[in-house]
Amino acid sequence: MGSISLLLESLPTDVLSAFRSICGEDGVSLGEAVREQHGKDESVHRCRPPDVVVFPRCVEEVSALAKVCHKHRLPIIPFGTGTGLEGGVGAMKGGVCFSLRNMEQVLDLHPEDFDVTVEPGVTRKTLNAYLRDTGLWFPIDPGADASLCGMAATSASGTNAVRYGTMRENVINLEVVLADGSVVHTAGKGRRPRYSPAGYNLTNLFVGSEGTLGIITKTTLRLYGIPEAMVSAVCSFPSVQAAVDSTVQTLQAGVPIARIEFLDDVMIDACNRFSSLSYPVTPTLFLEFHGSEQSLEEQVKTAEDITQSNGGSDFQWARDTETRNRLWKARHDAWYAALALRPGCKAYSTDVCVPLSRLPQIIVETKEDLIENRLTGPIAGHVGDGNFHCLMVVDPNDPEEMHRVHLFTERLARRALAMDGTCTGEHGVGLGKRALLCEEMGPVGIQVMQSLKDALDPNNLMNPGKILQREEP
Amino acid sequence: MGSISLLLESLPTDVLSAFRSICGEDGVSLGEAVREQHGKDESVHRCRPPDVVVFPRCVEEVSALAKVCHKHRLPIIPFGTGTGLEGGVGAMKGGVCFSLRNMEQVLDLHPEDFDVTVEPGVTRKTLNAYLRDTGLWFPIDPGADASLCGMAATSASGTNAVRYGTMRENVINLEVVLADGSVVHTAGKGRRPRYSPAGYNLTNLFVGSEGTLGIITKTTLRLYGIPEAMVSAVCSFPSVQAAVDSTVQTLQAGVPIARIEFLDDVMIDACNRFSSLSYPVTPTLFLEFHGSEQSLEEQVKTAEDITQSNGGSDFQWARDTETRNRLWKARHDAWYAALALRPGCKAYSTDVCVPLSRLPQIIVETKEDLIENRLTGPIAGHVGDGNFHCLMVVDPNDPEEMHRVHLFTERLARRALAMDGTCTGEHGVGLGKRALLCEEMGPVGIQVMQSLKDALDPNNLMNPGKILQREEP
Repeated sequence: MGSISLLLESLPTDVLSAFRSICGEDGVSLGEAVREQHGKDESVHRCRPPDVVVFPRCVEEVSALAKVCHKHRLPIIPFGTGTGLEGGVGAMKGGVCFSLRNMEQVLDLHPEDFDVTVEPGVTRKTLNAYLRDTGLWFPIDPGADASLCGMAATSASGTNAVRYGTMRENVINLEVVLADGSVVHTAGKGRRPRYSPAGYNLTNLFVGSEGTLGIITKTTLRLYGIPEAMVSAVCSFPSVQAAVDSTVQTLQAGVPIARIEFLDDVMIDACNRFSSLSYPVTPTLFLEFHGSEQSLEEQVKTAEDITQSNGGSDFQWARDTETRNRLWKARHDAWYAALALRPGCKAYSTDVCVPLSRLPQIIVETKEDLIENRLTGPIAGHVGDGNFHCLMVVDPNDPEEMHRVHLFTERLARRALAMDGTCTGEHGVGLGKRALLCEEMGPVGIQVMQSLKDALDPNNLMNPGKILQREEP
Repeated sequence: MGSISLLLESLPTDVLSAFRSICGEDGVSLGEAVREQHGKDESVHRCRPPDVVVFPRCVEEVSALAKVCHKHRLPIIPFGTGTGLEGGVGAMKGGVCFSLRNMEQVLDLHPEDFDVTVEPGVTRKTLNAYLRDTGLWFPIDPGADASLCGMAATSASGTNAVRYGTMRENVINLEVVLADGSVVHTAGKGRRPRYSPAGYNLTNLFVGSEGTLGIITKTTLRLYGIPEAMVSAVCSFPSVQAAVDSTVQTLQAGVPIARIEFLDDVMIDACNRFSSLSYPVTPTLFLEFHGSEQSLEEQVKTAEDITQSNGGSDFQWARDTETRNRLWKARHDAWYAALALRPGCKAYSTDVCVPLSRLPQIIVETKEDLIENRLTGPIAGHVGDGNFHCLMVVDPNDPEEMHRVHLFTERLARRALAMDGTCTGEHGVGLGKRALLCEEMGPVGIQVMQSLKDALDPNNLMNPGKILQREEP
């Protein structure tokens, strides 16, 4: 276990007793397997386990545990479902992992106000199952069945963002336990107006803060009416440019499209093999339309006309659930299809976001880069927002290849930065993109972020070493 | 001039020379009329003029001026168009007003990326005139022809927010001059991805900060395609409840309504008199639909069915511009119609925002309060968001009436707070709602806001005395 247990060995014994008296014998784990499981996410970042994992059952327990950590200057790392992609849950300085899975209540559903409040153990699929009979849903969908509070912590977006926005636009209020154990409600306790300009926007300061400013213990979310009907469509294009032009024109035409996903030829080829499909191996758009029966007909017609005028072919669409699912199967299985390209390897998704008009150039250059550097990285993107992912399929036991992937990731991010874009589209900064964040923001921007961190967490206890890389004095 | 010139008299003479050497003789004004004009907004708050007004022409000048102020510990008050409603531009501790009207360029329009960057002298109407031939527009409409950077500073929303969101959802990047004169780009210099989770959300920290954290010198905005067609409609209701129920059901049905405005019977009566109209004197909804010709037909039909099932009558709608303008005339003239109720008086708008389902109760209680306290305050609201305004018509020379208005405003805000709402819907905090903000946020929330302020502006130079009321040590 080596360095893992350094801190543990020096943990005052009264700390563990204090933890146990707060959340019970079962609520404190020192087991190696439990600690290992809580020290890593779904990325290839080399993380490390915490010294101890605690399982609080309510905000009062989170607050009491945080006060013990504060008193003993122990790092705190919040843990939701561990589905992150930039190493955000690694205990880089040891410390105490707060696993929030036992806080799993859906609270205060107000169907007539289109809002609901959830605890950190509630995932997006759990919430949507809970909402099934209300006619409402929460549409933000990053792929993984992530914790909604974790999605708030990383400012998740996903396939529906082009229509419904990201977590930034859909979180109304947060309950947060701060580094000293005090509890703040970012929009005031129990408040849920649809908007408010009352003082600084604390909600959006904590959305995307990746556990470095506090532990999110409740999230109040905006809900939407389930659309009357949905139509899915797929269309092939002669070039990336043609696919992107179709996207821009569809948005310009005011089609309220719900999802518009891009898959490159490599990704389509992988999907064809994996799911026994026969899509043409060219750049492809997967579309989804939400609305009334009548409005859908018009939306689909407009989109089809636009794709055809850009050389799109094989436009297929479907309204019934079964055919829709069959059409979108390729997109849904993209992750597994990519993995299947190299059995035994690990998939690792890296992403950037650029202004729409720069997408064709950056995708073309990125594909050349992949080929030149002998890397497998099919591309899938939320093209309506200029956000795309390379699903890198790598052998984690080949350090030379891992190094090539690392350099490729940096080049991809710098390419996005050179095109007025951002080094991370929706995965956050975590461990993986801290140096790139400095390039993106410049020294004054980083200094402002560091001042905010110092103001709210002067002892650097909250998920230390993430987002900002400055060591304490 | 009395206390107004206290600071001025003690201003080191080299400060004025420094200002003049930065922005020229014409760029520095000590004239009483100019100072008076820059010390007040459109509210009835007792503000006070700054000691001097400077007119920088570019961000470099703003930065150089701010450095002089920082060196001499002079307060800085940014000034856009002066259309605020909570006393945000008053120079409560004297100091230097930065009038930004000479920075009036529209920069970097990217039609294919749906974004544009503007300087603080650009108002929303100027921008939309500039965009006329591009097929794009910026829909956020708070009523006044405000500066777009000022709208960012106060987190404006307005009639279109139900469809297009508020400034919070539509600002992509800000250039801000900080208290020490340094310049930060909240999303990195020149960056304009549609979203990014790269570090703390500085953009939304400065959106709504009302000049207390820095001076906004550029705003990058999200644009939208001008809808193919628009339809306006008006409908009368037997009760506030019926109007609100229709609103909720219309949203639940997924009608992508663009505006849904409520006017109470008093407001309608005032509009009828002012504009020689003959709407039934009952609670009334004004609706606007944006979309394609075909989808509009369906939207209007759905909305009409819903209003009728709630007892709505006299549903009128129109597609051509002239009839649409005639239909909406009452809503557009509401401010002047309210003023005309008491010639010689001043209008003052106060607003709150509550969850939709609480609107009927709060509006009914507020109307009773107005009658009991002999106040004139017709009600108009962005009912799709739960935000409504009382347009108080008051005699500013009657201190007893002003006092009654003040107490009424506080009761209205507390009523909203008791219903899970916010004390300010879209006017911000400014001077007027600082005590109420403390009730809304609670002590920990205020403490967090104060820490952020102290971190970014340790000498309390940026628009001091606004939002937070703590005096310096």
